[in-house]
Amino acid sequence: MLDVGIIGASGYTGVELIRILAGHPQVRLCAATSRQYAGKTIAEVFPSLNKRVDIRCENLGVDELIHRADFFFTAVPHKTAMDIVPHLLAAGKKVVDLSADYRIHDQALYEEWYQPHSSPQLLAEAVYGLPELYRDDIRRARLVANPGCYPTSIILALAPLLRAGFIEPATIIADAKSGTSGAGRAANVANLYCEVADSFKAYKVGGTHRHIPEIEQELSLAAQSDVRISFTPHLLPISRGILSTIYASLSEAGKAADLQELYNETYGSEPFVRVLPAGQQPATQHVRGTNCCDIALQHDTRTGRIIITSAIDNIGKGASGQAVQNMNLMNGFAEETALMGAAFFP
Amino acid sequence: MLDVGIIGASGYTGVELIRILAGHPQVRLCAATSRQYAGKTIAEVFPSLNKRVDIRCENLGVDELIHRADFFFTAVPHKTAMDIVPHLLAAGKKVVDLSADYRIHDQALYEEWYQPHSSPQLLAEAVYGLPELYRDDIRRARLVANPGCYPTSIILALAPLLRAGFIEPATIIADAKSGTSGAGRAANVANLYCEVADSFKAYKVGGTHRHIPEIEQELSLAAQSDVRISFTPHLLPISRGILSTIYASLSEAGKAADLQELYNETYGSEPFVRVLPAGQQPATQHVRGTNCCDIALQHDTRTGRIIITSAIDNIGKGASGQAVQNMNLMNGFAEETALMGAAFFP
Amino acid sequence: MLDVGIIGASGYTGVELIRILAGHPQVRLCAATSRQYAGKTIAEVFPSLNKRVDIRCENLGVDELIHRADFFFTAVPHKTAMDIVPHLLAAGKKVVDLSADYRIHDQALYEEWYQPHSSPQLLAEAVYGLPELYRDDIRRARLVANPGCYPTSIILALAPLLRAGFIEPATIIADAKSGTSGAGRAANVANLYCEVADSFKAYKVGGTHRHIPEIEQELSLAAQSDVRISFTPHLLPISRGILSTIYASLSEAGKAADLQELYNETYGSEPFVRVLPAGQQPATQHVRGTNCCDIALQHDTRTGRIIITSAIDNIGKGASGQAVQNMNLMNGFAEETALMGAAFFP
Amino acid sequence: MLDVGIIGASGYTGVELIRILAGHPQVRLCAATSRQYAGKTIAEVFPSLNKRVDIRCENLGVDELIHRADFFFTAVPHKTAMDIVPHLLAAGKKVVDLSADYRIHDQALYEEWYQPHSSPQLLAEAVYGLPELYRDDIRRARLVANPGCYPTSIILALAPLLRAGFIEPATIIADAKSGTSGAGRAANVANLYCEVADSFKAYKVGGTHRHIPEIEQELSLAAQSDVRISFTPHLLPISRGILSTIYASLSEAGKAADLQELYNETYGSEPFVRVLPAGQQPATQHVRGTNCCDIALQHDTRTGRIIITSAIDNIGKGASGQAVQNMNLMNGFAEETALMGAAFFP
Repeated sequence: MLDVGIIGASGYTGVELIRILAGHPQVRLCAATSRQYAGKTIAEVFPSLNKRVDIRCENLGVDELIHRADFFFTAVPHKTAMDIVPHLLAAGKKVVDLSADYRIHDQALYEEWYQPHSSPQLLAEAVYGLPELYRDDIRRARLVANPGCYPTSIILALAPLLRAGFIEPATIIADAKSGTSGAGRAANVANLYCEVADSFKAYKVGGTHRHIPEIEQELSLAAQSDVRISFTPHLLPISRGILSTIYASLSEAGKAADLQELYNETYGSEPFVRVLPAGQQPATQHVRGTNCCDIALQHDTRTGRIIITSAIDNIGKGASGQAVQNMNLMNGFAEETALMGAAFFP
Repeated sequence: MLDVGIIGASGYTGVELIRILAGHPQVRLCAATSRQYAGKTIAEVFPSLNKRVDIRCENLGVDELIHRADFFFTAVPHKTAMDIVPHLLAAGKKVVDLSADYRIHDQALYEEWYQPHSSPQLLAEAVYGLPELYRDDIRRARLVANPGCYPTSIILALAPLLRAGFIEPATIIADAKSGTSGAGRAANVANLYCEVADSFKAYKVGGTHRHIPEIEQELSLAAQSDVRISFTPHLLPISRGILSTIYASLSEAGKAADLQELYNETYGSEPFVRVLPAGQQPATQHVRGTNCCDIALQHDTRTGRIIITSAIDNIGKGASGQAVQNMNLMNGFAEETALMGAAFFP
Repeated sequence: MLDVGIIGASGYTGVELIRILAGHPQVRLCAATSRQYAGKTIAEVFPSLNKRVDIRCENLGVDELIHRADFFFTAVPHKTAMDIVPHLLAAGKKVVDLSADYRIHDQALYEEWYQPHSSPQLLAEAVYGLPELYRDDIRRARLVANPGCYPTSIILALAPLLRAGFIEPATIIADAKSGTSGAGRAANVANLYCEVADSFKAYKVGGTHRHIPEIEQELSLAAQSDVRISFTPHLLPISRGILSTIYASLSEAGKAADLQELYNETYGSEPFVRVLPAGQQPATQHVRGTNCCDIALQHDTRTGRIIITSAIDNIGKGASGQAVQNMNLMNGFAEETALMGAAFFP
Repeated sequence: MLDVGIIGASGYTGVELIRILAGHPQVRLCAATSRQYAGKTIAEVFPSLNKRVDIRCENLGVDELIHRADFFFTAVPHKTAMDIVPHLLAAGKKVVDLSADYRIHDQALYEEWYQPHSSPQLLAEAVYGLPELYRDDIRRARLVANPGCYPTSIILALAPLLRAGFIEPATIIADAKSGTSGAGRAANVANLYCEVADSFKAYKVGGTHRHIPEIEQELSLAAQSDVRISFTPHLLPISRGILSTIYASLSEAGKAADLQELYNETYGSEPFVRVLPAGQQPATQHVRGTNCCDIALQHDTRTGRIIITSAIDNIGKGASGQAVQNMNLMNGFAEETALMGAAFFP
C-alpha cells in the first residue's frame, strides 16, 4: 500500500486525482492540502466525493507532509511547485509534479517563458512524464514532470511522423481547442458561465502561449532537429476536453508511406492511445473523464498535407490521469490500474 | 462468472449498461442486441468503448439469446419488453426489465396509461426494483421491474416522510427536471441540439406523464393510503441528470419531528443514497455518471411545507446503474460492485 | 429627443439597456457610468457594441450626472440605489430604478428582508413598474421601481386568477428556474462556467429568497388578501431566461371558469404578454433577448390544480426590457418602441 | 413597399429571414412556403414569432408564387434551388438564392463537387453575394448567389491580404468551427442534443467539404492566381456562430506592411465588418444574431505567419443576414436597413 499526498487538492486537477485514487487498490490517500479549504472535509468542498472519499483538507507545510506520505502529487501553480519539490525529494520521496516547473530541460528557455528557476539542478534529472515516449525512464524516476494538456495532445499526435521523417517540421500548425476547466478554478470574470457559454474564441494567438517551448522541446527530440510550430489555443464552451487539429506537409517519404499502419503499430498495444480507423474522427465526448487519447489521420491529397486530430480530456490524460499513470510506473504497479474506465455516453 | 445479455444495446441505457458491466469482475457480457447496428462492433457504434469492450451487436431472437446468457437486461421500449420477457423466464433466465411493462402491479391501471398487457400473469411476481425499499424481495426475484427515472428520484425522496405520516399526502407536488437523454436516442426535431440548447421548458403538464401511476403506486404503498400527486416534468439543456423539487405540507407530527435525523437514519448506511447536511442542496453535476441519489430537506416555516430536493443521473440510478444494482442483488454479488465510482468534477 | 443616463453600465442589465436604447429613435444616451471601467469605450468593455454604440464609461458623481441627462436608469445593487435616487429626483429628473430599493411599499418589510432604508419617504411615491398592472400610474410617475425578474414572471402569471378569485391563495407554489445571468457579473467561483454547465440545482430553498416579499406584496394586492407562497429558485445552465412553474388549487369558481379565455381577454391586446394556445408550453428560447412574457395554463383535473407556466428573459422583461417599457410610458413614447424585436431562433 | 416571398420558410435560415424582415420598414412578407408545415401559422411552427409575424405556411408552386411577390429568397437545399430560380427570373422577379447552386462560376467545377446543373446558363449572370467585394454588381443583379457560411468568414478574412500580395497563397490553412445550426433542422441522430453537447470534433477532414471550391474561387480571384487551401470544419456545441482561424505565411512585402492598417482601411467604413484593435480576439458571442463579421490579425513573428481570426453568425452574415443585405442593395434600400441590431450580451 502506497501512502500518497496531494499538494493542492482543491483545484480541478486535485479533485480529479482524488477521484481516480479512490478507485486505486494499492494506494492510500494520506494528505490533501488546501490553504483555502483547510479544515473542511473533501466532501464539503466537492460534494461529488460524499460517501466515497473521507479525508479533510489541511494546510500543511513540507515538514509535516513528509511524515504523512511516501509519494506526492504537486498540483499547484508553477513557481509554487519548484519551491516544494526539492524538499520532498530531499526527504526521499517520489514526486509527480503537475506544474510546468520541471518540464523544460533548458533552464534558459524555461526562464525566458516563465521566471527564474529556484531549483535548476533538478532539470536534468526530471523525466518528462509522457509514458508512451519515456516509459522506462519514468519507471526509474524520482521526479516526473507531468506534461501540459495541450502538449500531450500534440506530441502524441506528431511523434510518430517526426521520428519517421514523414513531415516537414517547419510546416507544423497546431490549432487546439480546450474546455474551460483548463483555465482553473480561480474566480475571474472571463471564466464566468455567461462569458463562456454559447461562445467560442481564440486566445494567446501568435506564438505566446507558455506551452509552446514544451511542445517544441519534445517535437524537436522526436525530429532530431529544431522544430518551431504555430500554435493557437481556443476556449471551448465545454468543461473538459481538448481537440487539437494539426497540419503538416508530408515529405516525399511520408507521401509514400502507410501512415495509418505506422500509427497502428506505434500505439496498437498502448492502453490509453486509440488510433481510430480511417474515416473516423475523434470527439472530446468519447474521452471525457478518461486517460485516453484518440487520434485520427487524414491525408489531404489536394494539398499534400496530413491532418492529425487528437482528443484528450485535459484533466485526464492532460493532467491527473496521466499523473496517476506515471505514479503507477514509478511504483511498479500495473500501468493501467485505476485508469481503465470508459467514458460514459452521452 | 455470470453470463449476461443486453437486449437493446444501442440506446442510451444500453450503452451505459455495457460501460458499467465492463468494470464488473463477476460478469461476462455475452450478447448485445441491436437491430439497427447488427454486425457492427460496439466500438463502431460507441467510440467511447474502443479498446474497452469487444463485442459485436447482433440481431438475435429469443431462441438464440437463451443459449448465450443466464441473465438478461431488457433495455427496449415498453410493449416490446413484455413480448420478450416471458420467454426468457420460461427458459429459466433471470431478468431486469428496464421498461415500464412490469412496474405497475394493477393490470387495469397499466392498461389505462399504456396499452393491453400481453403477460399480465407476471405482474404479481415482478418485483419493483428499488433496492432501498425492496432489497430482500429483489434478492429472491426472477423478474425485476427496474423503476423509471422520475419515479426513482421522487419515491426515494418521499418514502420516509410518507411512512412516518409526516406529510399530508394530498398536498404533494413534484416539479421535476430531466436531462435530454431521458428522451432516448431516436432522431426527432424536438431533441436536436439547436432546439434544446440554451432553452428550458415544461412538457406533459397537467397529470399526463406515464410515470404518474408508477409514482403514485409506490407513494401509496409507503403512505398506506391512496396518494395522488401533481407531477410536472421539464426538459433541461443537459445530457444527464434529474433534479426533483418536491413540496408537501407537514402534518402536525411532521412539524414536531427531526426530519433530517429521520433521513440520516433511513439512508445512512445506504451506499447510493446521500442525505446532504442541512443547508446544502444537491446538484445533478455531483451524481453524473453514478448510481447515487442525493437528497436534501428544507422546512419552509413560513408556509409549513417541507421541500425535498433529490438529484440522480437519469441513466445511472434512474436506469442502468440501478439495473446493475438489482442484478448484483439477484445474483448474490456485493450490491455495490461496479457502481462505486464517484462523479468526475467538473 | 430624451437625454438618458445609465448608472451602472457595465453589468449585464446595464449593457442590455445600452443595446436596447441603441435602437430607440427618441433617445440619446448621454452618460454611462462604471467605476471599474471608467475611461474605456463601451466597445472595449462589450465588443458586441463595437460600431453600434459610441460612448465611454465614466466614473461620475450625481452632481455631474444631473447635467448630462434628464432621465436615468439606476442599474446598481440595492442599497447603492437608494443613496443615488433621491438626488436625481431632487434635481427634477425621472428615474427607473432596477434595484429592489423602491419595490416594497412597507418600509418595515423592506428592512426585514434587506437593510435600513435611507429614503423611506419615497416608498409611497414610487410606482411598481409592471405596466400590465400599473400602466397609468407609471405614465405619471417620477420614480418607477422596476420589478425583479422572478416577480415579473410570477405576478403576470397569477394576477388574473387571483383578481378573479379562481385559486386558493394559500396553495400557491412557485417553482422557478433562472439562467445564470441573474447572478450578475461579479467574479465568484459558484458562477464559473465549470460549476454551472451541465448541472442544475435549487438555491435559497425554504422561503429565504429576497424576491418573496415583493411577489407576495403584488399577489396580495391582486387577491385583496394576504398571500403567502412557497417559492424555490433554481439555477439553469443557460445564460438568459426564467421559467416559472406555478401551482395552485382552483376554487370552485375557478373550476367552472374558462381560464384560457380569461387570460386571452386579460392579455390579448398586450404587446409583450403572449398567452399560448391550450396545449402549448412556453420555452425560454422563444423569449430570449426580448421583452415578452409567454404564459400557458394547464388544468390538472386529477388534482384540481391549475399549473401556470411563464417564460421571460430575466434581463429583458425581467429587467432592462421592462425598464425601457417603463421609460416609454413615463415619457409619452409609444410603449413598444425599441422593444418589438422577436427572439432569434435557434 | 417590396413584396417578398420566402421559399423554404421552415428551416433555420427561413425563420431568420422572417425575423429580420419583420423589422424591415420597406418590405411586406407575402408568402412563406413549407411543404411540411403547410397550413400552420408561422407562430405555430416558430413560437418566437408569436404576436410579431402573422403569416401562414403554404405549399405553393412557382406558378402561384410569382403572383404573390416581386422578390424571392430561395432558402432550399442545393439542387432544389436550381429547379425553381429560372422560373422566378423568367417571370421578371429578382432572387437571392441561399443555396450553393449559383455560387460557382465554373459549371464543371460545380458538377464535380455537387451534381449536374440544370440551369448552367445562369452561372455567368449570377453575382456572388458578398457585398464587401461585389457591392456594385449586386446592386445591378437579378440573381444573387448568397455565399456559404464558412466561405463568408474566410473570404472576408483573407481578401485584403491576397489582393495586396502579402501572403503566400499555397500556405493558407483555414481551421473553421461552426455552431450546430449549420447542419440544418433535419432530424438525425448526429445532431441530437446528447450527441453534440459537451463535445467537439472535426468533420469532413482532408479537403472534402463542399465549401472548398467556393472559397478557392473567391480567394483565387482576389489573388489573381490559383489558390488551393486546406480547410477543416469542426462542430461546436453552440447553436450559432462560426470562428475561422486562418494561417498563412507572410510574403516579404507582407512582413514589411502594416496589416492592421490595411484592414482598418479596407473595412473601416463597412457597417458589418469590424476590425478589432490589435490584441483583441473575436468571439462568436459578440456577433450572435447579427450581420457582423469581426476580424482580428496577429503576426506570429516566431514563424513568419499571420493568423487571422474571423467570427460571424452562420445564420446571420453567413446566411440570412447577408441575404437581406443583398436584397437591400438590389432594391435601392439603405444597405443596413433592418440589420443594425447589436448582439445581446450575455
